[in-house]
Amino acid sequence: MAYFKRGNVELYYELHGEKTKPVVVLLNGIMMSTLSWHGHLPDLTRFFQVLLMDFRDQGKSSRMSQNYDISIHAEDLNALLDHLNIDKINVVGLSYGGQVAQLFALMNPQRVNALVLSNTPARISPYLQELGEAWKEAARLYDGEKFFSLAIPFIYSDTFYNNNLKWLKKRQEAFKTLLDKDWFNGFIRLASSNLSFNTLDELSGIKSPTLLVMADRDIITPINEMELIKEKIPNSECLIIHDAGHAAFLEKQGEFLAAVMGFLLRYN
Amino acid sequence: MAYFKRGNVELYYELHGEKTKPVVVLLNGIMMSTLSWHGHLPDLTRFFQVLLMDFRDQGKSSRMSQNYDISIHAEDLNALLDHLNIDKINVVGLSYGGQVAQLFALMNPQRVNALVLSNTPARISPYLQELGEAWKEAARLYDGEKFFSLAIPFIYSDTFYNNNLKWLKKRQEAFKTLLDKDWFNGFIRLASSNLSFNTLDELSGIKSPTLLVMADRDIITPINEMELIKEKIPNSECLIIHDAGHAAFLEKQGEFLAAVMGFLLRYN
Amino acid sequence: MAYFKRGNVELYYELHGEKTKPVVVLLNGIMMSTLSWHGHLPDLTRFFQVLLMDFRDQGKSSRMSQNYDISIHAEDLNALLDHLNIDKINVVGLSYGGQVAQLFALMNPQRVNALVLSNTPARISPYLQELGEAWKEAARLYDGEKFFSLAIPFIYSDTFYNNNLKWLKKRQEAFKTLLDKDWFNGFIRLASSNLSFNTLDELSGIKSPTLLVMADRDIITPINEMELIKEKIPNSECLIIHDAGHAAFLEKQGEFLAAVMGFLLRYN
Amino acid sequence: MAYFKRGNVELYYELHGEKTKPVVVLLNGIMMSTLSWHGHLPDLTRFFQVLLMDFRDQGKSSRMSQNYDISIHAEDLNALLDHLNIDKINVVGLSYGGQVAQLFALMNPQRVNALVLSNTPARISPYLQELGEAWKEAARLYDGEKFFSLAIPFIYSDTFYNNNLKWLKKRQEAFKTLLDKDWFNGFIRLASSNLSFNTLDELSGIKSPTLLVMADRDIITPINEMELIKEKIPNSECLIIHDAGHAAFLEKQGEFLAAVMGFLLRYN
Repeated sequence: MAYFKRGNVELYYELHGEKTKPVVVLLNGIMMSTLSWHGHLPDLTRFFQVLLMDFRDQGKSSRMSQNYDISIHAEDLNALLDHLNIDKINVVGLSYGGQVAQLFALMNPQRVNALVLSNTPARISPYLQELGEAWKEAARLYDGEKFFSLAIPFIYSDTFYNNNLKWLKKRQEAFKTLLDKDWFNGFIRLASSNLSFNTLDELSGIKSPTLLVMADRDIITPINEMELIKEKIPNSECLIIHDAGHAAFLEKQGEFLAAVMGFLLRYN
Repeated sequence: MAYFKRGNVELYYELHGEKTKPVVVLLNGIMMSTLSWHGHLPDLTRFFQVLLMDFRDQGKSSRMSQNYDISIHAEDLNALLDHLNIDKINVVGLSYGGQVAQLFALMNPQRVNALVLSNTPARISPYLQELGEAWKEAARLYDGEKFFSLAIPFIYSDTFYNNNLKWLKKRQEAFKTLLDKDWFNGFIRLASSNLSFNTLDELSGIKSPTLLVMADRDIITPINEMELIKEKIPNSECLIIHDAGHAAFLEKQGEFLAAVMGFLLRYN
Repeated sequence: MAYFKRGNVELYYELHGEKTKPVVVLLNGIMMSTLSWHGHLPDLTRFFQVLLMDFRDQGKSSRMSQNYDISIHAEDLNALLDHLNIDKINVVGLSYGGQVAQLFALMNPQRVNALVLSNTPARISPYLQELGEAWKEAARLYDGEKFFSLAIPFIYSDTFYNNNLKWLKKRQEAFKTLLDKDWFNGFIRLASSNLSFNTLDELSGIKSPTLLVMADRDIITPINEMELIKEKIPNSECLIIHDAGHAAFLEKQGEFLAAVMGFLLRYN
Repeated sequence: MAYFKRGNVELYYELHGEKTKPVVVLLNGIMMSTLSWHGHLPDLTRFFQVLLMDFRDQGKSSRMSQNYDISIHAEDLNALLDHLNIDKINVVGLSYGGQVAQLFALMNPQRVNALVLSNTPARISPYLQELGEAWKEAARLYDGEKFFSLAIPFIYSDTFYNNNLKWLKKRQEAFKTLLDKDWFNGFIRLASSNLSFNTLDELSGIKSPTLLVMADRDIITPINEMELIKEKIPNSECLIIHDAGHAAFLEKQGEFLAAVMGFLLRYN
């Protein structure tokens, strides 16, 4: 509902809930936007003020004309918090947003009260790199329906497909008009920004309470990949969402909210 | 901190936290007592009034002289709630206590706001039956140290043993004096009370929001056994505590609390 | 090394090994050809005569001009066996070839001595249907390199990618020239032939010894999907290839050969 | 069917099958004896000469009066092979026998053609140590029926119990007379012999082809424990027996034979 101007980049953000409550920032996965969280807001705003933001090249934020490194989003967030006079936050990062969350927590440890890393890796493995290439290939078709067809079967679990085909086909239909040339070009730049992302040597520096949310049918960031994080962050906690894929936050919204809210409330 | 007399049976219970908050009842596993939950109280009482109780033949409640059916504990709880003028509760049942929770929810659906079934089965499978026999055999040695040695490796996960051997050996030492003849006889009666427990045909009647808490190294009530419940309770939610055994509530107290509190707060 | 003419369709097949040995027929996955098995032949021909065949629209067999049902391959195989005067066979079917194997075993039970179903489903679930659509979408680009990029991350496991990226990139390079317009059109017809494939109601009729080969990182035909077969075929045996994806037969050639040969030799 | 005298110890062994075939030695788990393999012989002797042996303190071999280290069995085997003029062998070691197999392969690498390690660890973890203590505690009751009740639920999977309760109860009945004081004392010494067993630093020296047989419901040597071996033995292969516990060789005899025979035949 507002824009924050950083240089000539306009960053779209939304603040929901009461000022008196502790702040939670929800960081988007690569294909998401602030809109993706609106179903989660009613529960979350009972206990938290919620800050949503579209990364540059996402949602309603500015489209870039050049490539950048994923760390720029962590800097954007930091500047936004200064602008909003928000000091301490809880960070929930999903997938790509989970990578941003790791970078933010490493750059600004004093600002992070508690951290949730959901369906996110500590490195771009060769497999993730090739998956990124596949998605960019699919994006270069500039066709929302085809993009959905080619990219989404990695995101949602087979069980979700088996139980929600109708809903998925409607989403595919919607992609036709929602995803325009600008969206695809933004997506391609986002998907090019984290090729060298690797926090394995630094994660042990994260001292804030950390929850890892995994999903047992996630084929993009499977449990064993997230365990690389677990080994590095001492005392991190860990919950598995059952029968869900990479989009666990949506496939099992109730379970995702339970895990995240239960964890955050213990440290707020 | 108080006793409720039902017939000639004294049921020990504790009420923690403020009256104005929604009530959560925590139902013990077979080897537990009200004491087992004291580590969980500081977090829980921030949001709930917590009712703990020792089942008959458990903790500070009366020892029986005859066998009974597990359903008697559900009746005891119902009477206790009447006595305390508590109408609606949230129920968290662990293992044996999870079986009581199922029976209570089936007998008194109108009293249950939300239900958490943790590491608990819907039936006494042949395996569970034989495990029960093994535990009774171990109990009949009337020796706390030996009982610990023989029964506990089923309860805690191998990974917990591998990381907490010292703590476990101290527990074993404590069992020497804590478990007396009365305790063992009570345990044997408890372990004899659920041989015909089977809710599979009735579970579909549970309409309150339900969370299933599983643990991926639980060998007593493994994930596939708890999925029998999931199939029967429409819309039940499900979280897995990673790298934990049957005693997940203690092995991973943080994760257990996160799952339970996050779920309950969404429905309270 | 020879062609069998059925109507106006030329079916390419190869017979390897000695006539005196029991016959094993290896049935290709959808993207495979007789060539894909050549690494397996040295081991297999020590104990078996091996019959390979390219399904119509595959490898060196005729390209069709119209769609057909997957069952036609089972009929083709049956006719080929008549032509070769081979009575009894052992059948090893992989993925699409595993579906053909099921159909063949149901049509010609008396011909099947023992059956191996590897990484194959009993039905085209909604997920598999959408995956098929994605692959056809990718095929319609008529570009081997892009097809590899978009379709192959489903086939090989993440762990295989992580350990064999160089080999995979060389394969991708090879796809450029190997996959021509004819190949893609054949592939699209093959991928359109099994939309209504579903043997769940018939599988209980399979009486020959059956081995199910699963892989624990197979995201196309995951273990739970193959367990649907297990429930239907009484006494079927089951081995899991560890740390392998849908292409387990190639990712873990040694383990695949061990499982298949060990099983078949017990029944030959 | 014969005894080999080593010092004043009589080691019972059996040789099955034809001299012209490659030799496979099957090494017993701690509660097993040569008899435990008789169901496997018909299949195995088609391709191998099979050597069975009872370790000292096992089956028909001598009972000791003092403790010893597990490595003594590897020396016993080596001496027995000299005695029998057998040079090269294939070794299949199960659980405790798998530990002996590791030690034998490390001491006599030139004698090992191929190695199968089934349901066996590379170290006695704290959990295994406590499990050993539990079993010794159970043995000191000198009562076969109680021993069965207390120890066997760790050995067979829950699914095996659920499907074969009758057979298991008959076994329990048989234990009454089969297990006498001598047996228990032997068992206690065997269970005391491997407390410091740990091959993790040496396993990389094993150069013979190696197959790891795991079972996905094995709670004594679970998959993650056996993966410690996998990391150390370069190029070891790995098959998982589905829905089986620590006694996979018996719970799923067919699958076990398929995996072992298929692997061994590739290297013989």
